[in-house]
Amino acid sequence: MTDTFPKTARNKVKRLPERGHYDIATIYPIVDAALICHVGFVLDGQPFVITTLHARQGDTILLHGAKGSRLLHHIQSGGEVCITMTLIDGIVLARSVFHHSINYRSVVLFGTGAVIADEQARLQALEAFTERLIPGRWQDARQPSALELKQTTIVAVPIASASAKLRSGPPGDEAEDYDLPVWAGVLPFHQIAGAPLADPQLRPGVEIPDYIRDFDLRG
Amino acid sequence: MTDTFPKTARNKVKRLPERGHYDIATIYPIVDAALICHVGFVLDGQPFVITTLHARQGDTILLHGAKGSRLLHHIQSGGEVCITMTLIDGIVLARSVFHHSINYRSVVLFGTGAVIADEQARLQALEAFTERLIPGRWQDARQPSALELKQTTIVAVPIASASAKLRSGPPGDEAEDYDLPVWAGVLPFHQIAGAPLADPQLRPGVEIPDYIRDFDLRG
Repeated sequence: MTDTFPKTARNKVKRLPERGHYDIATIYPIVDAALICHVGFVLDGQPFVITTLHARQGDTILLHGAKGSRLLHHIQSGGEVCITMTLIDGIVLARSVFHHSINYRSVVLFGTGAVIADEQARLQALEAFTERLIPGRWQDARQPSALELKQTTIVAVPIASASAKLRSGPPGDEAEDYDLPVWAGVLPFHQIAGAPLADPQLRPGVEIPDYIRDFDLRG
Repeated sequence: MTDTFPKTARNKVKRLPERGHYDIATIYPIVDAALICHVGFVLDGQPFVITTLHARQGDTILLHGAKGSRLLHHIQSGGEVCITMTLIDGIVLARSVFHHSINYRSVVLFGTGAVIADEQARLQALEAFTERLIPGRWQDARQPSALELKQTTIVAVPIASASAKLRSGPPGDEAEDYDLPVWAGVLPFHQIAGAPLADPQLRPGVEIPDYIRDFDLRG
């Protein structure tokens, strides 16, 4: 595997190309930091975009869902997908309306996939999904039964092409606007975890584990 | 305009249909709460999903960008889009791995659109985009020049079909799992704004306006 995806018509960042990146050192950390992805696919010429959880194993994106899922069936049939992840880092407040923007990190991945059939690989994939939600959970929760495993479809999509697009830092205004008496800067966004809410049906005496109490989204 | 979108093959929530909603009273607040959207479209049979800012005017989604944008050109040519917005509300920690989930609010919108040509409507659209980022900004920042207006393409996509899908509340475990000594509940997520970062080139003496200092993302 190369450490940079070739620029092609499909993955090339056309608008503001200076914000485009093609190296996995930039792309994969964004994939891993995003909790969800938006998967685009084509059915009868019509575009669909579905929100789902993902996990990354090396150069492959794992998706999962119930048997009968339209998206997973599409992938199983060899259909192409475009997988996009976006992290918002803040609002960019320029002196001019025109240069307002957001700071963000986004990736766009392309590929076709296949169902994972091997039972050991399927269990490893489910562990990856669970540990992505909150590290430490797989060992603590009840593991999947044979029936639950049977109800779950897992697909692997090797990343055939990809790019990242990022914006960071202060606004870029027109030279003549810097003298305007308008406040300019960045309003940063953070996603944080609030206090855990115990299930009303939680068995008495079950303490909250450290890996949940100390979980830091920004970690 | 109806206040509920008809269920069709295109917008019907197939998986977990009890989480599906078709009324604008559910759908539009999610559209308005999402800062960004993921727009899917088809070019030469290939799916693309682009992240962009949006604004809603009544039953229409506004998108904007630079002249020459592939997405905007596609819409200008009458091409279909699927616009998906997703808000993450928390991680759902069930006793079993199988019932882990996230709490979320998502919408999927379908339609075709057209470029807005009328200058007054274009200015109103830019005001809507700016006020969505941070209310109060349009009157404070420098308004678009004729040249900047010329460089910006704005399209309107009337919402032809739509659905929302939501999950909230505690985990739903198998009856026999409630006795397990596993902590279960929800880890809520919040997106918050941090302290504003002034542009290093900010003109001395320009105070931060109240509408930025007091901005609350959760508002």
